Amino acid sequence: MANRRETPVTSDADSPQPDEFAFIRRHFKQLAGVEALGLTDDAALFTPKSGHDMVVATDTMVEGVHFLPDDPPETLGRKLLRVNLSDIAAMGAQPFGWLLALACPRGPGHIARDDAWYAAFAAGVAEDQARFGVTLLGGDTTSTRGPLVMSLTILGNVAPGAALRRNGARHGDGLWVTGTIGDGALGLLALRGEIPDPDGWLADRYRLPQPRLGLMLSGVANAAMDVSDGLVQDAGHLVRESGVGVVIDADSIPLSAAARASGAAAGRFTGENLTTFCATGGDDYELLLAVPDSASERLLESCRLTGTPISRIGRFDSGVSGARLARADGSDIPLERHGWSHM
Amino acid sequence: MANRRETPVTSDADSPQPDEFAFIRRHFKQLAGVEALGLTDDAALFTPKSGHDMVVATDTMVEGVHFLPDDPPETLGRKLLRVNLSDIAAMGAQPFGWLLALACPRGPGHIARDDAWYAAFAAGVAEDQARFGVTLLGGDTTSTRGPLVMSLTILGNVAPGAALRRNGARHGDGLWVTGTIGDGALGLLALRGEIPDPDGWLADRYRLPQPRLGLMLSGVANAAMDVSDGLVQDAGHLVRESGVGVVIDADSIPLSAAARASGAAAGRFTGENLTTFCATGGDDYELLLAVPDSASERLLESCRLTGTPISRIGRFDSGVSGARLARADGSDIPLERHGWSHM
Repeated sequence: MANRRETPVTSDADSPQPDEFAFIRRHFKQLAGVEALGLTDDAALFTPKSGHDMVVATDTMVEGVHFLPDDPPETLGRKLLRVNLSDIAAMGAQPFGWLLALACPRGPGHIARDDAWYAAFAAGVAEDQARFGVTLLGGDTTSTRGPLVMSLTILGNVAPGAALRRNGARHGDGLWVTGTIGDGALGLLALRGEIPDPDGWLADRYRLPQPRLGLMLSGVANAAMDVSDGLVQDAGHLVRESGVGVVIDADSIPLSAAARASGAAAGRFTGENLTTFCATGGDDYELLLAVPDSASERLLESCRLTGTPISRIGRFDSGVSGARLARADGSDIPLERHGWSHM
Repeated sequence: MANRRETPVTSDADSPQPDEFAFIRRHFKQLAGVEALGLTDDAALFTPKSGHDMVVATDTMVEGVHFLPDDPPETLGRKLLRVNLSDIAAMGAQPFGWLLALACPRGPGHIARDDAWYAAFAAGVAEDQARFGVTLLGGDTTSTRGPLVMSLTILGNVAPGAALRRNGARHGDGLWVTGTIGDGALGLLALRGEIPDPDGWLADRYRLPQPRLGLMLSGVANAAMDVSDGLVQDAGHLVRESGVGVVIDADSIPLSAAARASGAAAGRFTGENLTTFCATGGDDYELLLAVPDSASERLLESCRLTGTPISRIGRFDSGVSGARLARADGSDIPLERHGWSHM
């Protein structure tokens, strides 16, 4: 794509290699799978997995919005990959490959990362690629006069009929969630120095969410999604798409020991305040599932096999409107916000 | 994805719908194919075309780099789609669907587009979707404190073994190019008021490139790519990947009547100056092909059937190093630049 106000490529060699291509070769070629054709063609080429359907999703992270300007490059690419892997997990699919579009800051007013920064970025991603069994298929790098913008597109495979949707929750289904909720939102506060985080556990959870891949959810969950914008708000998506309300038992929401300790130490988040902050904080990337009681045992068994923490935190109820956060006595906890919007 | 410094979603309704989701529903739901699952799930879901391979590519356009801040929204999304379709065409594939990642400017110092702008953007894309037979599969919208950044990922199908690569050019192959070269680069100058463009034809070519889909190139072209960063530079990619040089006959490069007239009227681009500007200008999105003489007739026939202009502009030569731009007398035309880099 032509870049009108950028670098002309001069003729100091017979076959000039513009900076962009050297940049890609230096940092990203090591990540490329065979389908990427060496990152030298116009597109990647692959044979879809036989007898499978495919899923595809894209998620963007913008500097100053989704991450801090001084977030370490070692974890930034890994987080971008993981939030996309979390979308694949939410569909009950297996990830296959990904594409990356980078708009890199140039010029005054924004942080221009140096080569070492991108090398660390790529090294981090390489580690997670191996961990999650995916490879880079392609991408695009360009410059911008604004903050760093990173868009990742991910592809995955799923057996026909096995994909999980948001619209299948039914009256009586249990509402389940993996892992713990609120650590990511608290981790951001910790990184800002607003709450203590003695061993850095909360910051780690903010920087490296854990995509919940590998669970056997087909025939177990009636609906699924990943929690990214706040538990209550995202439960509202299941409610809206499924046409059935849900009551979330506030006391059942799984909070980490670090969340409880840091909240208490800061004096700012205790009891119901901590719960509501965590339930509306976002950045969790845990799975939210609607599971009929008849399948609870199979869900628990799959979680045991994969070492995935899981909690039952509520019940879908056709007599309820929306997603309600309830106290033990059944009364609603009033919320100032339900989650976060990107726009 | 959590958006830390953005809009909290307040609880003024039982099922609050954050702005982002209303925005997507308002503008993009009309573009979504059945595979997009109404744009309400974590990923799109589709069954790959039976017996076919897939191609996938991504390309980004950044405000102030790839387009002008006041470029009309009616054509901006269409251009983004078309430059990606051009990548699919360069692989000899058929486009299927696409995903869009938008980082929309908010706050001071950047142009915050209003709802009418995005409506026009989507209406333009809807027109091109119908024209090229593709549908929206999914996407992501977020805000940025910088310029508008738009990343598009496109998926396509190709028969096994039929995909075109850049690395197949052989000694003796003809170098062919579709359409005319340089109009896009001249169109940008026209939009800046630097050269005349009485009927707006050059500006149109800049704003709406023509992806060269539908040609029968399998078994005809030994190598292919699309010209996006400048003809000479992109020919250099074919040369590098194929390991064989090429001599481009400057007089054979197809220039439009509008390019000749505007260049002459401006007094700035005539004769060799016009040719070299066009051959290094970029933003063409025409196909560059390596075709053995034995297949020339089949190429011409396919172009006739599809109404695609095509020109033979050079010859691959193992005795030549790099991509050379040559005069009729065989001497090299010296170039200050070969094309453009994105970084």
